[in-house]
Amino acid sequence: MGDEVILLDFWRSIFGMRVRIALAEKGVKYEYKEEDLGNKSPLLLEMNPIHKKIPVLIHNGKPICESLIIVQYIDEVWNSKSALLPSDPYERAQARFWADYIDKKVYDAGRKVWPRKGDEMEASKKEFIEVYKVLEEELGDKPYFGGETFGYVDLALIPFYCWFYAYGTIGNVSLEAECPKLIAWAKRCMQKESVAKSLPDQRKIYGYVLEMKKKRFGSE
Amino acid sequence: MGDEVILLDFWRSIFGMRVRIALAEKGVKYEYKEEDLGNKSPLLLEMNPIHKKIPVLIHNGKPICESLIIVQYIDEVWNSKSALLPSDPYERAQARFWADYIDKKVYDAGRKVWPRKGDEMEASKKEFIEVYKVLEEELGDKPYFGGETFGYVDLALIPFYCWFYAYGTIGNVSLEAECPKLIAWAKRCMQKESVAKSLPDQRKIYGYVLEMKKKRFGSE
Repeated sequence: MGDEVILLDFWRSIFGMRVRIALAEKGVKYEYKEEDLGNKSPLLLEMNPIHKKIPVLIHNGKPICESLIIVQYIDEVWNSKSALLPSDPYERAQARFWADYIDKKVYDAGRKVWPRKGDEMEASKKEFIEVYKVLEEELGDKPYFGGETFGYVDLALIPFYCWFYAYGTIGNVSLEAECPKLIAWAKRCMQKESVAKSLPDQRKIYGYVLEMKKKRFGSE
Repeated sequence: MGDEVILLDFWRSIFGMRVRIALAEKGVKYEYKEEDLGNKSPLLLEMNPIHKKIPVLIHNGKPICESLIIVQYIDEVWNSKSALLPSDPYERAQARFWADYIDKKVYDAGRKVWPRKGDEMEASKKEFIEVYKVLEEELGDKPYFGGETFGYVDLALIPFYCWFYAYGTIGNVSLEAECPKLIAWAKRCMQKESVAKSLPDQRKIYGYVLEMKKKRFGSE
């Protein structure tokens, strides 16, 4: 097609991973540009002057920002394979609702787990598990959130999976016992090449969290 | 069409107003049900068990939640007139970006203006004006955000206009001088019947803010 596709991204960004998965699902070839978030590139500042954040997808010179907006754009432009959003308006609204829930609840719940200690951490852990239990219930016995095939909500949520080892090891919050269906779902997603190749290793994330925790609280 | 459409709403909800405007633009007849947010109805709790918030659109018994998701749903279902989102995927992504900016920045900036005093209020006012200046620049010389016709971004932003009198009178923040194009745009939108009939009077909002301010800080 002669399309020029560039992704400005950062390896451990949950939001960047969503875009990587969407591009992989659609089989779109692109140039990946890793950003140094401590020293953002002139290209990032030019392409996302409002938020100055990754990910940014640059398609034939034009920028698209905000991960879920980028994923919807990818789904609309490369629409000949792997539909991510359902075609029915009601189901589409439901998919958008759950992706929005993930952005509003799951991201914050995870951020609160590791940087706390003692009672504060206990309260955060409880909230964390409750947020995931809601998703476990929504998933139910379906193989994917979208039903029989991997879709928009799966893609919005699965990047959090690479943080689970860090949550479990450092925060002592294991979702294995609390949300077994969700863990089975995550493992199912990880068997897809589009997902596996878009997510960093759980231990690499763990190493990063350990380092951040030491910087914040000193050694154990 | 025999559609049953019910809107669970609350008169001064910015988010509810968006849905009212979208329904008016499409000419959809619906039953408006005012919620008492201090004593939420069993119907609201049943229809939005996750967030328990208005607005909720109930279409033939099925609930759709979150204002921008509802508006997209309305645009997709009643698609024979007044398209709200652009048909081009890139323009649609841009419209979604600005509606998201409004949700992330404009709402918070407004909430910070009136409940503060002294220096804190001055800092909030500066931020408030900056947030709107970004929108003023995006609007430029176009009659509407979407171009020649009223659309998704216009609909996402215009409900804030009914708070402007309160901001100006209580917060002493006037956007008239700072963002003249935006004020002209707002007045243009208010000439549309779909908008005018969906927004409460500015003075009714002012009365409410005055009351809240007294409750929080006592009399002047």
